[in-house]
Amino acid sequence: MKEVAIGIDIGGTNTKIGAVSRSGESLYETSIHTADYPDAKEFVNFLQKKIRQIVDDISKDTEIKGIGIGAPNGNYYSGTIENAMNLKWKGIVPLVDFFRPYFPEIPIVLTNDANAAAIGEMVYGGAKGMKNFIVITIGTGLGSGIVVNGELVYGHDGFAGELGHITVNPKGRRCACGRNGCLETYVSATGIKRTVYKMLAKYTDESELRSVPYDQLNSKMITEAAQRGDKIAIASFEYTGEILGIKLSDAVLFSSPEAIFMFGGLAKAGDYIFKPTKFHLENSLLEIFKNKVKLLPSGLGSVNAAIMGASALVWKELAKTEE
Amino acid sequence: MKEVAIGIDIGGTNTKIGAVSRSGESLYETSIHTADYPDAKEFVNFLQKKIRQIVDDISKDTEIKGIGIGAPNGNYYSGTIENAMNLKWKGIVPLVDFFRPYFPEIPIVLTNDANAAAIGEMVYGGAKGMKNFIVITIGTGLGSGIVVNGELVYGHDGFAGELGHITVNPKGRRCACGRNGCLETYVSATGIKRTVYKMLAKYTDESELRSVPYDQLNSKMITEAAQRGDKIAIASFEYTGEILGIKLSDAVLFSSPEAIFMFGGLAKAGDYIFKPTKFHLENSLLEIFKNKVKLLPSGLGSVNAAIMGASALVWKELAKTEE
Repeated sequence: MKEVAIGIDIGGTNTKIGAVSRSGESLYETSIHTADYPDAKEFVNFLQKKIRQIVDDISKDTEIKGIGIGAPNGNYYSGTIENAMNLKWKGIVPLVDFFRPYFPEIPIVLTNDANAAAIGEMVYGGAKGMKNFIVITIGTGLGSGIVVNGELVYGHDGFAGELGHITVNPKGRRCACGRNGCLETYVSATGIKRTVYKMLAKYTDESELRSVPYDQLNSKMITEAAQRGDKIAIASFEYTGEILGIKLSDAVLFSSPEAIFMFGGLAKAGDYIFKPTKFHLENSLLEIFKNKVKLLPSGLGSVNAAIMGASALVWKELAKTEE
Repeated sequence: MKEVAIGIDIGGTNTKIGAVSRSGESLYETSIHTADYPDAKEFVNFLQKKIRQIVDDISKDTEIKGIGIGAPNGNYYSGTIENAMNLKWKGIVPLVDFFRPYFPEIPIVLTNDANAAAIGEMVYGGAKGMKNFIVITIGTGLGSGIVVNGELVYGHDGFAGELGHITVNPKGRRCACGRNGCLETYVSATGIKRTVYKMLAKYTDESELRSVPYDQLNSKMITEAAQRGDKIAIASFEYTGEILGIKLSDAVLFSSPEAIFMFGGLAKAGDYIFKPTKFHLENSLLEIFKNKVKLLPSGLGSVNAAIMGASALVWKELAKTEE
């Protein structure tokens, strides 16, 4: 009997689905267009058929041990997706309840994508054996998954770990959440774009980015420009890393993590983002925390990290009941 | 057989010692001058005799179930006090090791005073039954004890929960830690004194506080002035509450607590500090957290709260081994 966990990563555009073994071997991967399913019940119905098909495709004696789901605003306690801004399903969607009739016997675990990434890091990645760490996922926005005493921090209501909305400057950049100056308006793929434009306005240096309209600029272009020595691009990474480093030093005061992992698109810029972040983190830390906290890239492969994270929720949940 | 936990609260000036029953009944209380013992070993030797005497005084059949100690920079994992600024004992003091020969069989638990307050709140106070909450202790400085999933957050190294050193303004007030603009330079008995002086400089309003030298000003005088309608005093509380409320809204993003408890001298100012803090906390919260987080005064009596907190460490520790 081959035991697998199903990992599902729901995004505004695509939903990735995969099957992963307990040791972290990816056995199957596919994806569907989330936006094709304006009705969440129909989406779940399609997905359950897909899951059965995946399992049959792997081998006839595959056993599904559980289903792990990462989704924006996914709530671990209630199994619901609540008012997710970039999904078509409005209000409170009881996703786990929709899945339950199809899989009555196995754990079905939902949380947000950053929490799933943190569990993935603990089960398969660089945080194996760590009891206290933080994962920062830097994509369109900034998410975070916080592990304390070996357990994910869900908080009283299931929504803990929203470090993307820590205030950098209350009079700062407009955020999608309606407030101003949130961390993710500076530190994210969108944030660094905004910073490039700020730098282009502030300085007079030549830059290849001066020929790119805002709508077309992305973080990969900014990284490539930095690699070619573009001063505006490099200054933008330094500005981003400074803000991130300072705010991470506040996070260290809270939970004193052994390591902070950086995950997602912007983290792929390597030294351009890691160096200034590390410098300003160390520089801002309270004395007792200096030279203690590792700043690391995610230990999950980038190709299917979201599926890995979601599937890891299952093994983590099973470990709880097996205790 | 009467079962008691010994609670010890070590401060720079005094050390309070008491015996508390499992239900939270204080059976004995006394205090000694910490500063009389420049040698920590002698201090412990004196203390163990005191403990035996206390126990004999209560009744002949009293059983000590454990010793809980709250101390500045107390480390739960190592049982040491590390580089505490306001104690005479320098470097790393292995306090639990010093106690161990006298009490070889029972738990001896050390942590910092704010963590002890948080455990006290959970065992005897307003946080009974809560799994996720934060205690802010506002005295000379600002300490914090954070509980997540029913456990205190000690972090990787035992020093988690230092919210007093979250940065309000990197170019702000000089802090005893060597950095600038830490939360406790604004929100503490010392912080509000500094704010009163800022307000006296900024405004021209008459104020009874204009006749008080900085050295003699204390938070009780500021509270009493506010009660008499002193505009400078009231403005100082509002400024303090605004900064605290905004920074607590960041803390909520981290652990999504059910409640935040305020403990210590400044918290006794009641509405003068609670009202502006609550207003700015709610005003700054991310939408999903609004109207969810209770802001409460400590449920521990103020007279012997420090002893209660320290003794609670024992019951919490015993509950772990009894599980």
